[in-house]
Amino acid sequence: MREVAVLGAGQTKFGELWDRSFREIGIEAGLQALVDAKLESAQLQGLFLGNMAAGRLIDQEQIAPLILDYAGLGNRNLPAVRVEGGGASGALALHAGYLAVASGQYDFVVVGGAEKLTDVPDITGNQITDSAADHEWEVVFGATLPGLWALIARRHMYQYGTKREEFAAVPVQDHEMAAKNPNAHYRNKITLEQVLGATPVAQPLGMLDCAPLSDGAAAVVLGPMEVARKYTDTPIRISASQVACDTMALHHRRDITTLDSTAVAARRAFQQARRTPENVQIAEIFDGYSIGALVALEDLGFVAKGASGAAFAAGEFGRGGRVVVNSSGGLKAQGRPFGAVGVAQVVELVRQLRGDAKDRQVAGANLGLAHDVGGTGATSVVHLLERTN
Amino acid sequence: MREVAVLGAGQTKFGELWDRSFREIGIEAGLQALVDAKLESAQLQGLFLGNMAAGRLIDQEQIAPLILDYAGLGNRNLPAVRVEGGGASGALALHAGYLAVASGQYDFVVVGGAEKLTDVPDITGNQITDSAADHEWEVVFGATLPGLWALIARRHMYQYGTKREEFAAVPVQDHEMAAKNPNAHYRNKITLEQVLGATPVAQPLGMLDCAPLSDGAAAVVLGPMEVARKYTDTPIRISASQVACDTMALHHRRDITTLDSTAVAARRAFQQARRTPENVQIAEIFDGYSIGALVALEDLGFVAKGASGAAFAAGEFGRGGRVVVNSSGGLKAQGRPFGAVGVAQVVELVRQLRGDAKDRQVAGANLGLAHDVGGTGATSVVHLLERTN
Repeated sequence: MREVAVLGAGQTKFGELWDRSFREIGIEAGLQALVDAKLESAQLQGLFLGNMAAGRLIDQEQIAPLILDYAGLGNRNLPAVRVEGGGASGALALHAGYLAVASGQYDFVVVGGAEKLTDVPDITGNQITDSAADHEWEVVFGATLPGLWALIARRHMYQYGTKREEFAAVPVQDHEMAAKNPNAHYRNKITLEQVLGATPVAQPLGMLDCAPLSDGAAAVVLGPMEVARKYTDTPIRISASQVACDTMALHHRRDITTLDSTAVAARRAFQQARRTPENVQIAEIFDGYSIGALVALEDLGFVAKGASGAAFAAGEFGRGGRVVVNSSGGLKAQGRPFGAVGVAQVVELVRQLRGDAKDRQVAGANLGLAHDVGGTGATSVVHLLERTN
Repeated sequence: MREVAVLGAGQTKFGELWDRSFREIGIEAGLQALVDAKLESAQLQGLFLGNMAAGRLIDQEQIAPLILDYAGLGNRNLPAVRVEGGGASGALALHAGYLAVASGQYDFVVVGGAEKLTDVPDITGNQITDSAADHEWEVVFGATLPGLWALIARRHMYQYGTKREEFAAVPVQDHEMAAKNPNAHYRNKITLEQVLGATPVAQPLGMLDCAPLSDGAAAVVLGPMEVARKYTDTPIRISASQVACDTMALHHRRDITTLDSTAVAARRAFQQARRTPENVQIAEIFDGYSIGALVALEDLGFVAKGASGAAFAAGEFGRGGRVVVNSSGGLKAQGRPFGAVGVAQVVELVRQLRGDAKDRQVAGANLGLAHDVGGTGATSVVHLLERTN
């Protein structure tokens, strides 16, 4: 298998971009990534695009060629493929683009992720988020995605003694990180008291435990590792790209305090890269619901099962901690444009690993992990990115 | 690049399957393909699923893990990825699955396509088909997908003297072929007079020029060519898998009587396989609108530009012709469950190339071509399949 590198990265601001359409943001991120990769668009051989719900949000399917078209590449007749897996769509697109380059059929591809969630007609955010849960066995009976994550939180509290304050610490840290990220949806700092006192959504989760609906797009350019050095002094290798799935419905899982999909994807990824969780300095992980970050830290192997709450609250995963988690601000504060999230995570890792993350630079980061989740974990995707010089 | 073979193929009946859900048909096709491949489900390493619009049709995203789950594989934590590109979704899923095996990261994968179009709430067929056109520049101004294909037909008639009777011959042949296909949506024969006299949809296209909305699913099992012979006496090699795109809106094309996406994908495919159109004995091509089949025959290189109408009407692409086209009955008569179409085309080719097509067997078929289109050709996908013994 051919080694694959990230040559360039780009991202729009995340937020409520009422003055910008789906196609505009998709193009902006892609062009930024191309410029960053110092590639001519003539060298491009394909686009893999992560998007969750453009069909329902903007009545538009077949959006991968749409984005190529509006980027001025319509008549180049490049391949363009959209990939979907709920909130993990962007990470799945990266997996597909990675396989394309690894196979040898493609040399240079753009992997993009884009979602336009606000200022769209006739649909509520809930209808979209809930479509990543099991419609026939969860949603029609009234379960919502925050409601299902609340079940996970309750059980984690019951089984491991995890405290409400411990997962409330996740959004506090996220907002603190995002304050230094000019692309973040929210750059205001929040306090633990604010999180605990926020309007309940699905108890124990309140408004500030839940990531927002955001518009936004992100993109990376991939190419074969062997030619990467021609284009950049700091090629970032994708040392592992792994997907794992699980039952759609939460009630079919053997244990709802663990996402087996995450545990399995992580195990396969560390095996592929011949690394261990101890080698990781920086991670972008799923925190669409605050409890999700704690569960992920355990399932990814960063902390023993049940021990994440205390470790997080003690700052082990904050700035200066052993693994710096969500330096971008995460889904909670950088924002949550579904299809863009998995790609934006990698954009952040690339900037950190290159040493280009400015104010929010994590010193000495050589190995980064990206972790994205669809629904309550029916899909998990884990990527390991490594600085090679 | 590792060579990839089709080891097994399966397909449900296509039609209005009011008593069967999306998940049921998806599973049936996949299990058939596994049994046909003589593979244990324990050997499976992933699922690539083509689907166009489950989000809007059944309020369900993240359907790739859903299908795995309901196939009883939820707790196996396999990777599952959904791919979408309008009507070309199934063929794109095959491309993604092909790359996965070619890369070496996956050995055995199922590529499935499934769509549940009838007996679903609150949506019309038009809303779905039109979402593969350019929403902002075509659909909001009243253009429909059949209307856009009617423009192509008019222009083809004007520019090349193509006759109404010539593309009316396409559905006549399709129904004749489908009469021998037990999985076909329509098995009744129709006459040229019936096609010409049918209710107009978008003139010159009438009701019988347009493929129906169908429910259905199809699946193939892929594996590395080097181990394929262990599993089957007649491994079918995927000699080429190519995707090309074009502008979304028809009015941006240099010439609307040609789908550049098809011409480019075909050229790349013949190059990859080191074959020419003259080497092909059997083809499954896009005939969602009758004129589409004529345009495809030209763009694929089977007949000179403008000459397809007379050639088709003369039977050159019928049973006993130089290339037997749509022995399955095509989208028009076998049926059109969007995401399943591209995979079903390959199922038909595999059966023909193996010599397993019973009543409708085309003698001496060694090289087959599958051609699928999204919208009016923003996406085209071409696969070449070859019998190797």
